[in-house]
Amino acid sequence: MKERLLHTPDGVRDIYGDEYKKRRKVMARLHQVLTLYNYHAIQTPTFEYFDIFGKDKGSAPSHEMYKFFDRDNNTLVLRPDITPSIARCVAKYYENEDLPIRLCYEGSTFINKISHQGKLCETTQLGGELVNDDSSAADAEILATVVDCFRAASIEDFQVEIGEVDFFKGIIEEAGLNEEDETVIRGFILNKNFFGLQEYVKHLSISDHMKELLTSFDQLFGGVEMLEKAKKLVQNHRSLTAIERLEKVYHALSFYHAESHIGFDLSMLSDYKYYTGIIFKGYTYGTGDAIVRGGRYNALLSQFGKDAPAIGFVFVVDELMNAIHRQNISIPIEEEEIILLYPRADQQRAIEYGVELRKQGKKVELIRMSEKKTLEDYKEYAKKEHLETIIYMHDGTSETYAITW
Amino acid sequence: MKERLLHTPDGVRDIYGDEYKKRRKVMARLHQVLTLYNYHAIQTPTFEYFDIFGKDKGSAPSHEMYKFFDRDNNTLVLRPDITPSIARCVAKYYENEDLPIRLCYEGSTFINKISHQGKLCETTQLGGELVNDDSSAADAEILATVVDCFRAASIEDFQVEIGEVDFFKGIIEEAGLNEEDETVIRGFILNKNFFGLQEYVKHLSISDHMKELLTSFDQLFGGVEMLEKAKKLVQNHRSLTAIERLEKVYHALSFYHAESHIGFDLSMLSDYKYYTGIIFKGYTYGTGDAIVRGGRYNALLSQFGKDAPAIGFVFVVDELMNAIHRQNISIPIEEEEIILLYPRADQQRAIEYGVELRKQGKKVELIRMSEKKTLEDYKEYAKKEHLETIIYMHDGTSETYAITW
Repeated sequence: MKERLLHTPDGVRDIYGDEYKKRRKVMARLHQVLTLYNYHAIQTPTFEYFDIFGKDKGSAPSHEMYKFFDRDNNTLVLRPDITPSIARCVAKYYENEDLPIRLCYEGSTFINKISHQGKLCETTQLGGELVNDDSSAADAEILATVVDCFRAASIEDFQVEIGEVDFFKGIIEEAGLNEEDETVIRGFILNKNFFGLQEYVKHLSISDHMKELLTSFDQLFGGVEMLEKAKKLVQNHRSLTAIERLEKVYHALSFYHAESHIGFDLSMLSDYKYYTGIIFKGYTYGTGDAIVRGGRYNALLSQFGKDAPAIGFVFVVDELMNAIHRQNISIPIEEEEIILLYPRADQQRAIEYGVELRKQGKKVELIRMSEKKTLEDYKEYAKKEHLETIIYMHDGTSETYAITW
Repeated sequence: MKERLLHTPDGVRDIYGDEYKKRRKVMARLHQVLTLYNYHAIQTPTFEYFDIFGKDKGSAPSHEMYKFFDRDNNTLVLRPDITPSIARCVAKYYENEDLPIRLCYEGSTFINKISHQGKLCETTQLGGELVNDDSSAADAEILATVVDCFRAASIEDFQVEIGEVDFFKGIIEEAGLNEEDETVIRGFILNKNFFGLQEYVKHLSISDHMKELLTSFDQLFGGVEMLEKAKKLVQNHRSLTAIERLEKVYHALSFYHAESHIGFDLSMLSDYKYYTGIIFKGYTYGTGDAIVRGGRYNALLSQFGKDAPAIGFVFVVDELMNAIHRQNISIPIEEEEIILLYPRADQQRAIEYGVELRKQGKKVELIRMSEKKTLEDYKEYAKKEHLETIIYMHDGTSETYAITW
């Protein structure tokens, strides 16, 4: 019983001490990047009606959402993702706005997956959305923001991989395949099962050239020069336009001096069906998963009643912090904490001195000295807790001890 | 359908624009106060096992919690309150620590009440807890922190009312009343139904003096001088000790220069049963409810396996922001936002200038000029959105327009 009471449910956790201080600091730095691009912060509710994340919104699958009921028996879900909530807000609060809208957010999201490999069910997401701008300049701005966020988190070695969902869709159209075939092929590519893909494509009644093309997805990644190669493989307008878009975005990214962190991967497809144009994922070492993902979702807002293009990105803060930790990246969390230690008789002096020090912006912790403890005990405590100074006020005097650890 | 998709569930809401910016700023200021007292931030999960908030923990009543199940059919609840989670953390991570532990937190809490008078079901709470210190100095520190938080939020006209649950309990003991009578009497006092209380007490078989005492709770409030009066009314040790404690706390608060905001109310009892000593509520005008509440809960941690005294407070950020809004308190949210407006041909120049301005710490929003709009349209937009400057870059030149609103 007692033991059980100390546990958190599977997949959620407490974050405290230096770990949480560093996390807050990194999140503040990312928020500052978004502020400089003039993104405006918005906070949506932790739970929403199920419909907001329903099947046609292309968010997480229904069986992976935490569900419960309100008093009128409507189904509520803990948000699996914040983008659909932002889409709802844009349709509601910016119904008639046709100029660019930049919004950013941070908060918990929830996926009810069977916990494996220590996967978290509650993660903190921090992201931005740029609505009402369908240009390649908007795509480039979002990617430049992502690059700036990585840099703000002091990560130097990172890569943002970009794909374009229309490249794949154009090929499916060119080959004249039905939705069933598309779903199977998408599955093989998503799971990087290129052997299975080859076997499946072999039996389709399409031209040999199309077969070759469909099985070439394991090679369509690399630098900007790969795009030239891909362009020669396809004839259809949709796929060609997709590649030209990627070239434009890359060109604009060079004006941001962000292109050195960019790669391309035309086999990148998304679990989330709401993406319609470019999609991307950002990686660094120290964590297997993407730390940031995003893309263009020009059809999502119309489902909430506003026909507007949009693009966005989201950092999974937990993954970002894992990477920072494993790469031993230093996130300084200025401590400079003082203990004011006093016996009961010196209470007034100690409190008044504490007030004075705090006015100077110093962090001060008052401790009334216990009769059961010695000054040495408090020095040990300060050492363990990484507190830098003990000021021992007693009998009208005070002694200062610098603590090292 | 479309209309419904725009709605948030009852009792939850979106927060955006200047309102959210001010909220973030106020929360940062409160967090800074807690940091100066050396409270360390901790984040606990949004949901926990039901047991953490179960009946014996004295948190919100079970039927007011949002409940759902994990895959093993354990009951999970959205936390109605964060204090029990912090108690769990202290028992888990500071099991053998006997020196003072200062922790602070901020996050959403959830109460599934039938929405009336626009009451929120999801509120943001920000609070602090001081564990392992049972002294009146600890009580005073927590109250001084609360006073400093009000001041940091730029609220000048506020009052913190203090009670002591042992004063009431001592009287019940002195009168020799059973638990049933105690519950009824507590209900009358909690609901300020002093007429009902009088009727009920009339029929109890206790001395006239005790009847008089029990019906005097409507007068036991006021400044520190009221405590003298109260002391003369009671004979029992428990009630007298409670009053002496309040006097000590008041004395220590004078060292903080915080006593002018303090009042006493011995009829203050709490819905939350975990309080064991002093309890308090903080008020200002512009909102009917208490903005901050707290108290001493010396028995809660032992339920998690650590026998340690504790005291804490929590600000309901939503109520705090309501008060700030209704009192027309200015929370400056430095804007100084720039629009860089450019036609397609000037994209490179605009992007590069944007990068340059952001390096200088300026907030810059790039807008590619639409052929359907004129410069005047953008000026209107900037005015509406409170953006201060438009820099219009075109044909190799640039023009700057200051916007006023």
